[in-house]
Amino acid sequence: MGRSFQLVIAYDGTNYAGWQIQPGKLTIQGMLERALARITRERVPITGSGRTDAGVHALGQVASCRLPQWRATSGDLRAAMNTHLPPDISVLQVRDAPDDFHAIRDCTGKRYRYQIQVGGVRRAFDFRYRWHVRGPLDLEAMRGAARLLEGTHDFASFQAAGSDRKTTVRTVRECVVEQRPSETGGATTDGEEYAWGDDLVVEIEADGFLYNMVRNIVGTLVEVGRGKEGVDWVSSVLLAKDRTVAGPTAPPQGLFLQRVDYVPF
Amino acid sequence: MGRSFQLVIAYDGTNYAGWQIQPGKLTIQGMLERALARITRERVPITGSGRTDAGVHALGQVASCRLPQWRATSGDLRAAMNTHLPPDISVLQVRDAPDDFHAIRDCTGKRYRYQIQVGGVRRAFDFRYRWHVRGPLDLEAMRGAARLLEGTHDFASFQAAGSDRKTTVRTVRECVVEQRPSETGGATTDGEEYAWGDDLVVEIEADGFLYNMVRNIVGTLVEVGRGKEGVDWVSSVLLAKDRTVAGPTAPPQGLFLQRVDYVPF
Repeated sequence: MGRSFQLVIAYDGTNYAGWQIQPGKLTIQGMLERALARITRERVPITGSGRTDAGVHALGQVASCRLPQWRATSGDLRAAMNTHLPPDISVLQVRDAPDDFHAIRDCTGKRYRYQIQVGGVRRAFDFRYRWHVRGPLDLEAMRGAARLLEGTHDFASFQAAGSDRKTTVRTVRECVVEQRPSETGGATTDGEEYAWGDDLVVEIEADGFLYNMVRNIVGTLVEVGRGKEGVDWVSSVLLAKDRTVAGPTAPPQGLFLQRVDYVPF
Repeated sequence: MGRSFQLVIAYDGTNYAGWQIQPGKLTIQGMLERALARITRERVPITGSGRTDAGVHALGQVASCRLPQWRATSGDLRAAMNTHLPPDISVLQVRDAPDDFHAIRDCTGKRYRYQIQVGGVRRAFDFRYRWHVRGPLDLEAMRGAARLLEGTHDFASFQAAGSDRKTTVRTVRECVVEQRPSETGGATTDGEEYAWGDDLVVEIEADGFLYNMVRNIVGTLVEVGRGKEGVDWVSSVLLAKDRTVAGPTAPPQGLFLQRVDYVPF
C-alpha cells in the first residue's frame, strides 16, 4: 500500500485547464503527478478534495496520495515536490496521514472565496484574480440575500446544468459579503491615490458544494446587488430547484478554494 | 501639432518584452500606440518617461502624446484607451498637458519599488511580482548600506555594462528597506496560517536612474543582507565606478516603476 500523505497545495489556476488530468492539457493534478513521478520514479496517483475549473485558484487545496517507499521526512517530500513544480503551484504542507486517508471521502467541509472589483478602471494586476463588475452594487442587499442562503437547503438551482449528484441538499454554514479596501493602490503624478474602485469579497463555507455552486451563487448575489432582483428573489430561486431561474455564472478567475476541512488526525 | 496629453499607466510586465517597441515582440508602448491608432485612425507616437525591461511592472508610468483632433474630454480618451487595451495594461489617468509637455525631458524624478520574498516556500501567487531569496537577510545591515547610497554620487558602478550616458552622477533622495507582513496568507488544514516567509521592499527615489541601476543596487544590498559583504563595502563600490565590483543584477519581476514626478502644471 505504501505510506499515506496529506498535501496542502496553493495554485494560480490562470495557466491551467483546471485540477483534473485531461489528455493534451496542462492541469494541476497532472503537474503534481509529474513531480511525484520524477521524485519517486514510479507512477503515483494523487486525489484532490475536488476539482477546480480552468482559471480557478486555490489557497489551500488538499490532496491525498500513497508513496510505495518514502523513507525521508514529510518535509523533505514537500521540498522535493516544490523543486519539481512550476512557480504557480506551491506545496504548502505535507503530513503523514492515516493509512485509509482519502481527500474526497474524508472531507467534512470547504470554504471558498470569490473576489470582485466594483467600478473603477480594470486593474492591470488584478485581472487574473477578480471579476470586474461595473457597479455600483448594493452591499446591504447582497448581504441580506447571502443570509437567506445560509442553512440547509436544496441547492439544485445553483448546480451547473447536466450535473448528476445523488442529492442536491447542502448545508451552507456561512455566506458573507465583505467590502475591503483595495490592496493594490496606484499613484498619479499629483500625489493623489488613483480611484481603483472597491473590492468585494464573498466567502462561502459549506459541508459540500455542487458543481459551479459558488460561481452561480455569486452571479445571483450580483443580480441582487445591481438591483435587478430584490433580496427575497433568492428564496424563490432556492424553491424553484431549477438552474435557469438563478443568476448567471460568475467568471472563474475570481474564485479561490480557500480551505478544505477534515476531522483532525 | 494637435492636443497634448499626459497619461499615467499601470502595467503587469510579465507578458511583455518591455516598454519600448521592438519588431515582432509584444511591448507596452506598442500596445498603447495600437490602441491610439484604433481610436483615432491615425498613427500617434507615444513617449514614455523611460523604458522598463521585459518582466518589469509599473504602478504609475507616465507618457506623453499629441492627438491631432480629439474633441471629447481627457476622461473619454482614458475610457476609450482602456477599451482597446489588454487587461494587463490600465490607463489610470489622462490629463490635458501644456503644448510642449514631454514625458522624458520634463521628468524631475522617479520612484521605484523592488519586492523580495525572504525564505518560505515560493508563493504560487507571487512569482510574477517578487524575487524569492532563500535568506535569512540582515535587515539592519541592508538599511545601513541603503543609507550610504542616499545623496549625490557617481553611480557608474551600478550602471549596466555598455551603457553610454553623458554623466553617471545622480541624486538618490531616498533609499529605504522595509519589512512588511506577507499580504498573501495560506491556510493549512489545522487552521494555522502557513509560514510564507517575509516580504521585503526596497524603495528608491532619485532625480534620475541609470540603466539597470535599481536592480544592481538591490542585488548589492542583498549581498550585504546575506553577510557576504559588510555595510561599508557599498561605499567602496561607489568609489570604484566599475560595474564589475557591485553585486549581481536582481531579476526583473520584483521591480515596479512606482511614480514619475513632474513640475505641476
